[in-house]
Amino acid sequence: MAEPIFPESEFRARLARLQGEMAKAGLDALLLTTAADIFYVTGFLTRFWESPARPWFLLAPGSGDPVAVIPSIGEHLMSQTWISDIRTWDAPNPCDDGVSLLSATIDELLGKAAVIGAPMGLETHLRMPLCDYLQVTKTIAPRRFADGTVVVQRTREVKSEAEIAKIRTICDIAHQTFEDISEIARAGHSMDAVFRDFQASLLGHGADWVSYVAGAASPGGYDDVISPATAAPLALGDVLMLDTGAVKDGYFCDFDRNFFVGPPSDAVRRTQAALWDATDDALSALRPGMRAFDAHRILSKGLEKRDVIPCGGRMGHGLGVTLTEWPSFTPLDNTELREGMVLTLEPSAFVEGKRFLVHEENIVLRADGPELLTQRAPREARII
Amino acid sequence: MAEPIFPESEFRARLARLQGEMAKAGLDALLLTTAADIFYVTGFLTRFWESPARPWFLLAPGSGDPVAVIPSIGEHLMSQTWISDIRTWDAPNPCDDGVSLLSATIDELLGKAAVIGAPMGLETHLRMPLCDYLQVTKTIAPRRFADGTVVVQRTREVKSEAEIAKIRTICDIAHQTFEDISEIARAGHSMDAVFRDFQASLLGHGADWVSYVAGAASPGGYDDVISPATAAPLALGDVLMLDTGAVKDGYFCDFDRNFFVGPPSDAVRRTQAALWDATDDALSALRPGMRAFDAHRILSKGLEKRDVIPCGGRMGHGLGVTLTEWPSFTPLDNTELREGMVLTLEPSAFVEGKRFLVHEENIVLRADGPELLTQRAPREARII
Repeated sequence: MAEPIFPESEFRARLARLQGEMAKAGLDALLLTTAADIFYVTGFLTRFWESPARPWFLLAPGSGDPVAVIPSIGEHLMSQTWISDIRTWDAPNPCDDGVSLLSATIDELLGKAAVIGAPMGLETHLRMPLCDYLQVTKTIAPRRFADGTVVVQRTREVKSEAEIAKIRTICDIAHQTFEDISEIARAGHSMDAVFRDFQASLLGHGADWVSYVAGAASPGGYDDVISPATAAPLALGDVLMLDTGAVKDGYFCDFDRNFFVGPPSDAVRRTQAALWDATDDALSALRPGMRAFDAHRILSKGLEKRDVIPCGGRMGHGLGVTLTEWPSFTPLDNTELREGMVLTLEPSAFVEGKRFLVHEENIVLRADGPELLTQRAPREARII
Repeated sequence: MAEPIFPESEFRARLARLQGEMAKAGLDALLLTTAADIFYVTGFLTRFWESPARPWFLLAPGSGDPVAVIPSIGEHLMSQTWISDIRTWDAPNPCDDGVSLLSATIDELLGKAAVIGAPMGLETHLRMPLCDYLQVTKTIAPRRFADGTVVVQRTREVKSEAEIAKIRTICDIAHQTFEDISEIARAGHSMDAVFRDFQASLLGHGADWVSYVAGAASPGGYDDVISPATAAPLALGDVLMLDTGAVKDGYFCDFDRNFFVGPPSDAVRRTQAALWDATDDALSALRPGMRAFDAHRILSKGLEKRDVIPCGGRMGHGLGVTLTEWPSFTPLDNTELREGMVLTLEPSAFVEGKRFLVHEENIVLRADGPELLTQRAPREARII
């Protein structure tokens, strides 16, 4: 029997918050279909979501306990969570892959006028076949689906102390791994070996698994931050960036570190310092009640006033049961920043031309400002 | 610059097959949104899909080259693939996250009567916000979307020799890791340490990353095959199962191995032998032209004739750019088995009651029957 990651009270508190948001949004229930949303409400944690074969459903009513409508292969694991109403079918079934069981469950639990929220807005997707969704829509009429993104977003965005502790733990694991950089990377090592050793080191320090690694190494900054490793060897003059979303108990860290392979150019050093200082600005200035675009503005202005050019794209985001969560620090995101949000600060800036650098820290927003969850990077990036 | 995983000719051959299937299905284009489908056509490989923040689109017309409509953060990496028409927007944008750019691209490339296939059937999902999909549907009218699952399924199911070589490579890496089991697992080790060491060993043997690990250890078989690790120590009498979907160059293996912690009971030994023998039946009997349900029947009958009771659920599936692919070896799946399909044989059977064992091998189906991609497990599982 697996030890539960959180006590039942943690999940009941989440459900109560979801139900409060449902009431405000005029929704009678929520239909959840993704690994993150279902884990968040139930504690059901498995890497089996890697298989696209089967849909999984959790129906959370506006009052009362959630009902899991899932493939029978998951029954044993779900029965170890706090969820007691578990309905299963033998999936995958090419004739009816849970459609009639989900429809019957909705029919049983919700009145004819019910409006069921499902996350269908920004940064969401419905993890079930679209044809099946359309079929369920017909079967459950006159009940109807509506966008439930705001309900899930506003609930998941604000973390409990138990969640914050989990994120701090995985941040510590990644910090210890970055401290071992001299065992992972030195001039002459190929980048794919660096990536492999980095992941193995994260595991060795206690990560359950490593869902995300990216990195780059080239002179004067890098061209992108999402590439997989190449066989190219690290060379003197490279800036090496490693970024990880490692996982412990279902919670992610998401931060990078830059390392210099030999002494950096003045331009690289100056850009790195500006990124660090702009992050410091945000660590001082960010407060609950500001908007996501304020965080973007603070970081952008922080770079500009140190005479480096900010890159486009977002400069931070939420973090928790997925690698990135709402909100996004862009000029357009007006999400209110609230106490208890776990966020990344991720300014990026060009180095004299097209290459760039990114610097990232993870924080929790407290009433009096950010509290670091990562151990702050040194202002001068380490030379390896 | 990353080395391409395949030459352009490989991708052009895939596109030609997709376009042949589109013609048969009466589709004028395909809209692809998932990591696997976009990697399959373009070679665009990144772990950045772990972030749910941004949708990515590939529009593959019935003739001519595909067009990528993607977040600008992916432009550099996509520009290293064979795709030349790349259109980007600065995502995430809460006002318009690619909707108008995708709509304009469709408007430019496809006539008013066009029918655009998108995978929306069994074992698929649309990886974009549902609200955005519905908006695009309105914007591009009278063009319309239709289910394109069969086009993608029939194309991806049959692997090229280059793909088969990739899958064999990652199967070899996992095989070497299982050979090191005595370094990974022994009585007294906790299961979470076993899981971590197993993943680190896969990386050490050359896996790029480890997308899937599951396992279990208990006496007389296990209760499920999708659980994460617990802190429980391995104990004498346990059956240890480890299952992995490790990845090399974007291609998965998917197989497990059973190990006995000390000598097994007669019932466990007999069940394990029956699983091995039933797998041998399938290795002898499977032929192109059979149906997926025939594979299920061969494996089930193979177990029954050795006096063990098969478990419910599927007994194998496709394998390639995702951990599991069409078809599924269930009694209901009538997909034709074709030469070049890469498949898992995965019988499972009860051990005297509710616990069970699973045995899994990976094959490619040739004209004259299965060719193993895994190195065949020994008939007697190893005692550790």
